[in-house]
Amino acid sequence: MSLLEKINEPRDLRSLSTDQLDQLAQEIRAFLIHHVSQTGGHLGPNLGVVELTLALHRVFESPRDPIIFDTGHQSYVHKILTGRRELFPTLKQRYGLSGYPSRAESEHDWVENQHASASLSYADGLAKAFRLRGDNHTVVAVIGDGALTGGMAWEALNNIAASPDLPVVIVVNDNGRSYTPTVGAIADHLSALRTDPRYEQVLDLVRRSVTRTPVVGSAAYEVLHGVKTGLKDVLAPQGMFADLGLKYVGPIDGHDVGAVERALQQAKHFGGPVMVHVITHKGKGFPAAENNAEDQFHTVGKIDEITGAPLSGPGGRQFAEIFGEELVRLGRFDDRLVAITAAMLYPTGLHRFAEVFPERTFDVGIAEQHAVTSAAGLAMGGMHPVFGVYATFLNRAFDQVLLDVALHRLGVTFVLDRAGVTGNDGASHNGMWDLSILQLVPGLQLAAPRDATRLRQALGRAVTIDDAPTVIRYSKEVVPADIDAVDVIGGIDVLARCDHDQVLVVGYGAMVPTALTVGRRLADQGIGATVVDPVWALPVNPALIDCAARHQLVITIEDNGVVGGCGARLAQELSHRKIKTPVRNFGVPQRFLEHGSRSGLLEELGLSAQEIARETLEEIVGHARPLTTEDVLADRPQS
Amino acid sequence: MSLLEKINEPRDLRSLSTDQLDQLAQEIRAFLIHHVSQTGGHLGPNLGVVELTLALHRVFESPRDPIIFDTGHQSYVHKILTGRRELFPTLKQRYGLSGYPSRAESEHDWVENQHASASLSYADGLAKAFRLRGDNHTVVAVIGDGALTGGMAWEALNNIAASPDLPVVIVVNDNGRSYTPTVGAIADHLSALRTDPRYEQVLDLVRRSVTRTPVVGSAAYEVLHGVKTGLKDVLAPQGMFADLGLKYVGPIDGHDVGAVERALQQAKHFGGPVMVHVITHKGKGFPAAENNAEDQFHTVGKIDEITGAPLSGPGGRQFAEIFGEELVRLGRFDDRLVAITAAMLYPTGLHRFAEVFPERTFDVGIAEQHAVTSAAGLAMGGMHPVFGVYATFLNRAFDQVLLDVALHRLGVTFVLDRAGVTGNDGASHNGMWDLSILQLVPGLQLAAPRDATRLRQALGRAVTIDDAPTVIRYSKEVVPADIDAVDVIGGIDVLARCDHDQVLVVGYGAMVPTALTVGRRLADQGIGATVVDPVWALPVNPALIDCAARHQLVITIEDNGVVGGCGARLAQELSHRKIKTPVRNFGVPQRFLEHGSRSGLLEELGLSAQEIARETLEEIVGHARPLTTEDVLADRPQS
Repeated sequence: MSLLEKINEPRDLRSLSTDQLDQLAQEIRAFLIHHVSQTGGHLGPNLGVVELTLALHRVFESPRDPIIFDTGHQSYVHKILTGRRELFPTLKQRYGLSGYPSRAESEHDWVENQHASASLSYADGLAKAFRLRGDNHTVVAVIGDGALTGGMAWEALNNIAASPDLPVVIVVNDNGRSYTPTVGAIADHLSALRTDPRYEQVLDLVRRSVTRTPVVGSAAYEVLHGVKTGLKDVLAPQGMFADLGLKYVGPIDGHDVGAVERALQQAKHFGGPVMVHVITHKGKGFPAAENNAEDQFHTVGKIDEITGAPLSGPGGRQFAEIFGEELVRLGRFDDRLVAITAAMLYPTGLHRFAEVFPERTFDVGIAEQHAVTSAAGLAMGGMHPVFGVYATFLNRAFDQVLLDVALHRLGVTFVLDRAGVTGNDGASHNGMWDLSILQLVPGLQLAAPRDATRLRQALGRAVTIDDAPTVIRYSKEVVPADIDAVDVIGGIDVLARCDHDQVLVVGYGAMVPTALTVGRRLADQGIGATVVDPVWALPVNPALIDCAARHQLVITIEDNGVVGGCGARLAQELSHRKIKTPVRNFGVPQRFLEHGSRSGLLEELGLSAQEIARETLEEIVGHARPLTTEDVLADRPQS
Repeated sequence: MSLLEKINEPRDLRSLSTDQLDQLAQEIRAFLIHHVSQTGGHLGPNLGVVELTLALHRVFESPRDPIIFDTGHQSYVHKILTGRRELFPTLKQRYGLSGYPSRAESEHDWVENQHASASLSYADGLAKAFRLRGDNHTVVAVIGDGALTGGMAWEALNNIAASPDLPVVIVVNDNGRSYTPTVGAIADHLSALRTDPRYEQVLDLVRRSVTRTPVVGSAAYEVLHGVKTGLKDVLAPQGMFADLGLKYVGPIDGHDVGAVERALQQAKHFGGPVMVHVITHKGKGFPAAENNAEDQFHTVGKIDEITGAPLSGPGGRQFAEIFGEELVRLGRFDDRLVAITAAMLYPTGLHRFAEVFPERTFDVGIAEQHAVTSAAGLAMGGMHPVFGVYATFLNRAFDQVLLDVALHRLGVTFVLDRAGVTGNDGASHNGMWDLSILQLVPGLQLAAPRDATRLRQALGRAVTIDDAPTVIRYSKEVVPADIDAVDVIGGIDVLARCDHDQVLVVGYGAMVPTALTVGRRLADQGIGATVVDPVWALPVNPALIDCAARHQLVITIEDNGVVGGCGARLAQELSHRKIKTPVRNFGVPQRFLEHGSRSGLLEELGLSAQEIARETLEEIVGHARPLTTEDVLADRPQS
């Protein structure tokens, strides 16, 4: 029986010897590689935190002492140690193990948050609550060096450091990477701490003092501990964290369980805010991952357990590829084009642009707010910036899009990847808010291209608009074969048409194929349906309004939240013009979605062509008094 | 003729002697006090930056070298020096001088932004654009110590400091205050720099070396400059900024034009990012303002030019007062209640709570993101946090409300002051986005109380909801006398009713009095109107839907953007239930508003009772085929 099989809760770790801990770490790595290579998931980050997580659960009493993982994708080891080992074959599947902490799964999971840099604020609040209640708990936040580049982390540090009695242990998991290497001054500072020669001198001294790491609690340990602590206090570089008033412990070798444990003990007993700086290697123990410059093992699909080679490709090209290539092409003609990424150079496809135009590419760190406003500055200075970002992360910078870009009438192009229902990463990775919040921004123009040709056209147009923000949003799914228009009316693509004006089906972006199927199903039932894709969804094209006015029923299909989405906007514009054609909006219900496959979720949410066609038929048949064409035409605007 | 009258553009400053600069500074202070006491405006911040602004315009060549004011309310002196002196009697009036930088007013104004902490990101982008274009300009950002507590500033510093050749001069205007004293570790660090004894020693040495400040460019200046620079490099405390790789110059006495000028020259010639730390006194030269602990002179109404006493009160109580008092009352019963402010203790009315419950009050600095997520942490730890914030600033933390609070089903109450059209502070201070973005948040409940009684009731209910975010929004206007309901149906207040079911007028919050007037005007025309206030506007109350279904026309009145507002949501809910009663939404057009009085703006926007009644009558008369009651009832949902 393996050691791992005996670990069902954190307290099972307490009695293990150093040798056993080392063995357990090996078993956990093998377990992670074996399972994640079969299900896909965040492999690299979790291989990096095996020893750190073991030490955390030996030193702190979870869940009494909350352990909060910033960007919870580094919580797999924590899940293994808190009784969820056997669920790993179901990782990221519907009704299976979440890829992130989940309060429904375990009392050991406090925060499900998947957007970076939030853990320190949670820790600050929790620790203050415990203090007010007189509870003597320590709150631990585990945050990557990448997440420290986010402004929220700074806001929280500014507060935590000013509360000298707040028992918060901030573990900086420093692997020198966000997705790709972490950028900016904070990364340089951490690196300076890491490479300070005094650190090595201390380690050398300690190595010479003892032959092997003693057991915690033993006399030898106490001596060594004392020596290390004393030396650290004198010698360790503390830098800016100390300037802020934070106690700093480190840097610690994150793959030495004993060393991490000692540092955490020291931090725990301090009783105030402490930063423990732990150096880890992302992908540790999996050779294919350890030295991958592009950080392709940050998150993986199904891969070969030995070589790391992908077992199945995405089955086609992705929008990000088309976008990256097209931006390079445009960049050759227009030297005003600059690219911005918030630590996502490869996932957004912008690495292609960076290779050709390194001086025109800016990776700002995990800092969406700064990305947007520095883009505004670049636009003011005569450039046209293109910010590639996941749709869900732009929520972090709504205010900056609104005021810093739109109020100043600046030409910045936002390219939103992972828009719509993304599925297996769970609630907060779905890009289902962008259409609703962005339509509030005066002057903003938004395109939802359905295929590669429309993406290229939209991008080509967007980068020529220099007095307003433009947005292009697309899904993470494989790009479908081009879907050509049978006609173009005032800029909207007619994809299927009928001879009489019964139902108008409006499909947005990734839902266009569904719209086409709905149109065919209606036709099969003898209902004439025109299917259109406005491509530029916002502002609402007057041609779409005219077209809607000529129909007896409009249905809209989008994979954004149904409240305040493109469909709602079209209905509001019709109502504003006193056009009475009823509009039925199909979109994502306004609730947080569970994790699962995209197709499965869409089916569950009633966003399959079959279900939409069924409801549409019901609507038509169920009409108390179906409108006649005359009714509708009588209400058309005079324009 | 005064000196000031001869200054019509920055270059007029160049030839002035030190004595003349001192005289000019005095004249500017007198000018500011005289004019702002008559118009109202941001008095304290501008009195603090007189010498600093003089030095900026002597050292840098605006607009070639952009000078960006973080939170532009400190730009009055800049306006005076750039040819806008004579417009000061029109300050903050419609078609008059804006209270913030305005690109329409002057080429010297680059950024109109009024939300804090954005200037460094703009500067980063602008400097990068200039570098790409080969332009040799320096970008200057003037940022208060308060704004440095915002996460955006950190994100930008992280990027700027990592670009050693980027000519960005960051002037930290350190007056030790945000509105009230700046909180947190960064403030402590700045304060430590300020009070470092070595600073005084250097100053002493310099004082002993020369009898008076020599003219820039003179031999004596060069000697002194060399001495100071050398000493500074050796002795000056640099701390965390140096750790980040930023060149640090300071601290400098911000009321010594010569000293500031020398520091800025030094910074300008360095050619890379430099932080110049300038110590100023908010309200300098106006005794009533200089030592006001509550910082009541940060922004003033009309005041006595000598004593600073307000010349007219607000003419009644404000919602913030009622809120502050009620929260104290509730806090005595419920020790789970905690208050959070983002550097706005007095303006939000939370100082009352802070006086009684200091240990349950948290001022987090200008850090809305952290405010929201630390509130989430407090809620997780068993507290019920109440975050008082201006409506427009909550845009900064949409993602945190959505994921950190709502996804985690935590009970946090947000109290939004300055909701709706605020008017004379201009576009970005209007609270016209909150109803649209907050209705996207699953589970969120929002109340827009119309009067003091409704505010107290709503707050009392909000703080008992522990599994979802709640929001209360109100305007900055004077609280009207209580408007009692004539009936309550399923939780919605009926304020006026008619015997036949013709028009339903739904008023939200501050627009309820307008809704009542509209109802009366319709009645005068023989149109029966029921006027209701749902108070709890989100989610849509089923009783409101039933009520709407019984009417032939629904009109909604809100002072939020009309797109995706409460009215749009009501229409969407009706449509979803296949209720065909037409809904006409009255709200703020989806564009950025100019500054001006609230009442004037509402009139201009067509949101007066007269205009709404007129349009409603037109709609009724113009109906091609008015629906009958039978029509409508036939379509009612079966529930």
